[in-house]
Amino acid sequence: MRPLPLDQVYRFIEPGPVVLLSTAQDGHANVMTMSWHMMMEFTPPLIACIVSEGDFSFRALKATGECVIAIPAVGLAEKVVAAGNASGRDGDKFARVGLTPAPASKVGAPLVKECFANLECRVVDTALVPAYNLFVLEVVAAWSDPAQEAPKTLHHRGYGTFAVDGEIITLDSRMP
Amino acid sequence: MRPLPLDQVYRFIEPGPVVLLSTAQDGHANVMTMSWHMMMEFTPPLIACIVSEGDFSFRALKATGECVIAIPAVGLAEKVVAAGNASGRDGDKFARVGLTPAPASKVGAPLVKECFANLECRVVDTALVPAYNLFVLEVVAAWSDPAQEAPKTLHHRGYGTFAVDGEIITLDSRMP
Repeated sequence: MRPLPLDQVYRFIEPGPVVLLSTAQDGHANVMTMSWHMMMEFTPPLIACIVSEGDFSFRALKATGECVIAIPAVGLAEKVVAAGNASGRDGDKFARVGLTPAPASKVGAPLVKECFANLECRVVDTALVPAYNLFVLEVVAAWSDPAQEAPKTLHHRGYGTFAVDGEIITLDSRMP
Repeated sequence: MRPLPLDQVYRFIEPGPVVLLSTAQDGHANVMTMSWHMMMEFTPPLIACIVSEGDFSFRALKATGECVIAIPAVGLAEKVVAAGNASGRDGDKFARVGLTPAPASKVGAPLVKECFANLECRVVDTALVPAYNLFVLEVVAAWSDPAQEAPKTLHHRGYGTFAVDGEIITLDSRMP
C-alpha cells in the first residue's frame, strides 16, 4: 500500500461508501461494518461516525481512542455483510469473515489488507458520545492500494441491499 | 408527493447521496448542495450535517432552526453542481439554477419539487456548531415522489466528479 495524501482523504469518504472499522484492545483486533459516517473537515481530515454502545467495538474505540477506517470494494461484499452480522464478542472476527489484519503505522488498530484504502484515525472529540455515540476522528495516516484500480464501492440501503458504483461522470465545478 | 414513513428515512441517507439543503429566512428561500451528512439514529430519524459558516445557508439554518434535505436523482446533476457553485448572496438561487420550491408541511423551508425525496428537518442540537459547524437535525416529516421509480443518486468524489448508482445487489443480512 502507498501513502495517500491527507488532503485527498475526503474524496474517499464523501461519496458515502460502506466502510469497515477496525479496533484493537489488549491484543485482540476486531472489525465491524459501518455506514453512519461523514467528513467534517478537509485538512487535517476529520470524520464523524456513530458507533453504537451495543457494538463490541464501542468499548475498544472508547478505551484506546484509535481505529482504522478501511474501504472495501464490491468484491468484498459478502465479507462486509458477514462482518456486519457477527459480533467480536464471539471470537476473532477477522479470521471468521476471512479478512487480514496488517500493522498500521501510527495507531494500534490494524489495517484491513483486502481494502483499497485504509485511514488510520485517532479520536479527538467525545463530546457527543454520551448523547449520540458520535465520535470525532482525525485521520493521522492514510494508505491506498495501487493494485486496485477504479474500485467500485458499496452504498448500503438497508437489509443487505447495496447500490454499487456505476457510471462515473464529471461536470465542470469549482466545488472541492 | 406521498408521505414517507419516518422509520424508512435512513435508507435514503445512509447510502451517502449528494443532497440539496433548503432554508428560508425573511421570505427568502435558498438552496445549497451538501455531501457532508450522516444518519445518527433510526427513529426519530436524526441526521448530522456540516454547513460551513461560509455558506450563506448557515445564517438561515442557525436563525430559523429549520431546513429541508432533498435528494436529487442523476437527471438533476447539472442543477446540483450549479447550486453548489453559486451563493444565495447573489439572489434567488432556486430560480437561477432552475429548481422549484414547494411548501413544506411542518417547517418554513421549502421542499424541492424536482427531488425524489424531501425530508423536513428541525435543528435539535447545536453543541458542535461552534467547533465544527455540525448541526444535529431531526426529520419531522418526509415525502417521496412515486413518479420517480428506482432513482439513481449521485455520490460526490470531489471537483464535480460523481459516482452514479449502478447495479443494485442484495445479500442475506440481518443488518437494518
